[in-house]
Amino acid sequence: MNIPEKRVETRIDPYVDVYADRTKGLKASAVRALFAVANRPEIVSLAGGMPNITDLPLDVIGNAIGDLIKARGPQIMNYGGAQGEERIREQICEVMSLEGIEASPDDLVISCGSQQGLDLVTRTFVDPGDVVLAEAPSYVGALGTFTSYQAQVVHVAMDEDGIIPEAFRAATVAARAAGKQVKFLYTIPNFNNPSGILLSVERRRELLAAAKELDVIIVEDNPYGLLGIDQPPQPAIRSMDADQVIYLGSFSKTFAPGFRVGWVLAPPAVVKKLILAQESATLCPPVFSQFAISEYLATWDWKSQIEDFRSMYRERRDSMLRGLDDHMPPGATWTHPKGGFFVWLTLPEGFDSDQLSARATSHRVAYVPGTAFYADGLGSRNMRLSYCFPTPERIYEGTRRLGEAITEEMELRTTFGLVTPHSPGRVQPPEVRS
Amino acid sequence: MNIPEKRVETRIDPYVDVYADRTKGLKASAVRALFAVANRPEIVSLAGGMPNITDLPLDVIGNAIGDLIKARGPQIMNYGGAQGEERIREQICEVMSLEGIEASPDDLVISCGSQQGLDLVTRTFVDPGDVVLAEAPSYVGALGTFTSYQAQVVHVAMDEDGIIPEAFRAATVAARAAGKQVKFLYTIPNFNNPSGILLSVERRRELLAAAKELDVIIVEDNPYGLLGIDQPPQPAIRSMDADQVIYLGSFSKTFAPGFRVGWVLAPPAVVKKLILAQESATLCPPVFSQFAISEYLATWDWKSQIEDFRSMYRERRDSMLRGLDDHMPPGATWTHPKGGFFVWLTLPEGFDSDQLSARATSHRVAYVPGTAFYADGLGSRNMRLSYCFPTPERIYEGTRRLGEAITEEMELRTTFGLVTPHSPGRVQPPEVRS
Repeated sequence: MNIPEKRVETRIDPYVDVYADRTKGLKASAVRALFAVANRPEIVSLAGGMPNITDLPLDVIGNAIGDLIKARGPQIMNYGGAQGEERIREQICEVMSLEGIEASPDDLVISCGSQQGLDLVTRTFVDPGDVVLAEAPSYVGALGTFTSYQAQVVHVAMDEDGIIPEAFRAATVAARAAGKQVKFLYTIPNFNNPSGILLSVERRRELLAAAKELDVIIVEDNPYGLLGIDQPPQPAIRSMDADQVIYLGSFSKTFAPGFRVGWVLAPPAVVKKLILAQESATLCPPVFSQFAISEYLATWDWKSQIEDFRSMYRERRDSMLRGLDDHMPPGATWTHPKGGFFVWLTLPEGFDSDQLSARATSHRVAYVPGTAFYADGLGSRNMRLSYCFPTPERIYEGTRRLGEAITEEMELRTTFGLVTPHSPGRVQPPEVRS
Repeated sequence: MNIPEKRVETRIDPYVDVYADRTKGLKASAVRALFAVANRPEIVSLAGGMPNITDLPLDVIGNAIGDLIKARGPQIMNYGGAQGEERIREQICEVMSLEGIEASPDDLVISCGSQQGLDLVTRTFVDPGDVVLAEAPSYVGALGTFTSYQAQVVHVAMDEDGIIPEAFRAATVAARAAGKQVKFLYTIPNFNNPSGILLSVERRRELLAAAKELDVIIVEDNPYGLLGIDQPPQPAIRSMDADQVIYLGSFSKTFAPGFRVGWVLAPPAVVKKLILAQESATLCPPVFSQFAISEYLATWDWKSQIEDFRSMYRERRDSMLRGLDDHMPPGATWTHPKGGFFVWLTLPEGFDSDQLSARATSHRVAYVPGTAFYADGLGSRNMRLSYCFPTPERIYEGTRRLGEAITEEMELRTTFGLVTPHSPGRVQPPEVRS
């Protein structure tokens, strides 16, 4: 009998000696593994950051884009410029004016989602070993990008008004004293991902003054700025200064993410570099997507649509906060976001959100453990709870299940005297609460 | 009177000390500056690489995509996976089977155009100072990407059958003797951009054997493989070996570039790295575009469409070759491509295609000077002439104008004894002719 020999891999990865150094810091994110679980229908996922776009006018959009293809297909389906199409850059200036920004379309570069905008900015500024400052906690996807360019991420403390200017100053001085170049401060001033915290207007001014004094660029990432729930849009940091700030914007939350259209607004000299970077990265950002979004903006009352989104997310946020009030055990605290998608929860003393994850899954609820949002191992008592995607009823039910899981864990610890060990190096950051 | 003081910039670029080292090699490409001229309507542009997609069934595509939005908008306009959508990866396997490739959808990563696929591959493998081997001449956009990762590009000679395996071997040995890591050989085997040369099947086998012996990865970039004019598709190098070859594919020439959908087919271990790289670069490649192309492939007889493209480009190539026969002065030689978009022309001894450029513009014709396609300053007697976009009549007229410009230059040189100086370091490469 001729049974073929089982193919045995002699080395796990035969290319291991050929990869670039920068790949060493990259590891499959715990968040991605989590999403496979979170997507199971029986699970209430408070883990994802997907916007709920079911209320978009699909007939209007379908007809507008279909007609556009018939009328101008050969142009809108061909190559475009690396900087992006002129018309959408003009329309973006109108969008940004809602947050007080005065800008020229010439100072914009379109990107394949604002993630790619951040990639271009990091590529343009960061050498291996350079320091990038970021809020504590900060967006997991940004931390991934910084790591992929071998940056050293240094976190800067926040309180209920956002990043603390004095902490920014101290971190910059300390990094420089250690011989490091500080390339920029990365901040999500509006409804920070993951904490939901809003940087107060006064703090924006203080932060900008510190940045100018220290000569550190601020990278202002603003996907949620128009999705404030309790108040009108706040003035962007970029609206206060055009030279010190590189601004990242996105249509992913105010329209739809699948088109992958974001943008970078930067000083003219930086724009030149970003265009070159975009050419070598993609030749040109998605052309068809740009025309499609231009058409949507021209066809539909997009400002009213954003108002509808705000109402929709308000209901969801309220449902989550009500659920947390009703179901969280004593000792748990959480932020009260005024917009955006996320609540940041701090578990009672001694809990570990990574370890709780399995129990939460068995209670059919998912969240993102806090450590994902720190480059330095902090966040083990925290979790990010998102209210953007499930219905209000499911969100409320999710908090109930989460409460059950925590209570069960608490009871086990009381009964059996279990103590959840802290991993080495996992010191709890100061509590963030709003 | 209160006249505002003119704002004087004290430094040309205030951020010059903050940029990453990798930005230093990047300069505004001469090609881009050229395109501004080439796009003027009175100019016959033989410079661009834009496919002619006017024959696509716009009504069919418009209706299909419009209906898709109405039926499945909230899914196709939301975030997707970093690896790309499963259905299009399956369809791509069917596309690649036309060139003899057997592959699993699991081994594919979707990219924002195949340019971004190349960016991800380079990011995954290349450390500053590493050697990347590339044909002489090679695609300008690839050279830009390699430079942006601070690779040292070493060119490998071609002849009328494509890249010369012995030259590949010698270049690898020499680089290693100089203490360099050779990360991969980048090749466009089908109708090389810019030379139009087809790598013969026998050469593919020899090249692969050499790569295995030397343990060098081959990056096979194949945008034009299905656009052969005179023969059926050739077997891809990847069809002969799954471990030694990373394959880049694209819908830009067989469908339309504006959707920005390309792909990388790689060994499983490499795919894992590429997915991580894609996550940090874009979160996910254009989702809507992937669904749109899936729908086109499912709705339309795309294979017949490619046949139509082949006929259309055959007519254009023939028109260019006829025009060159009719109008080129003695001493000029050129390749006779069997597919793709480009003819590579060598001017008579003593000419410089960069210098001829202005005269060509005054004769209302544009091309890309050959130096764009070398990392080392060669190519000054060459030019790339593309026949993809203008009508056959315009192409023929373009060659007539080009002949005029060259003849005029020749006459001036004869009359006034002008000698075009070679720039230092610009040695002419061996003539490539097919």
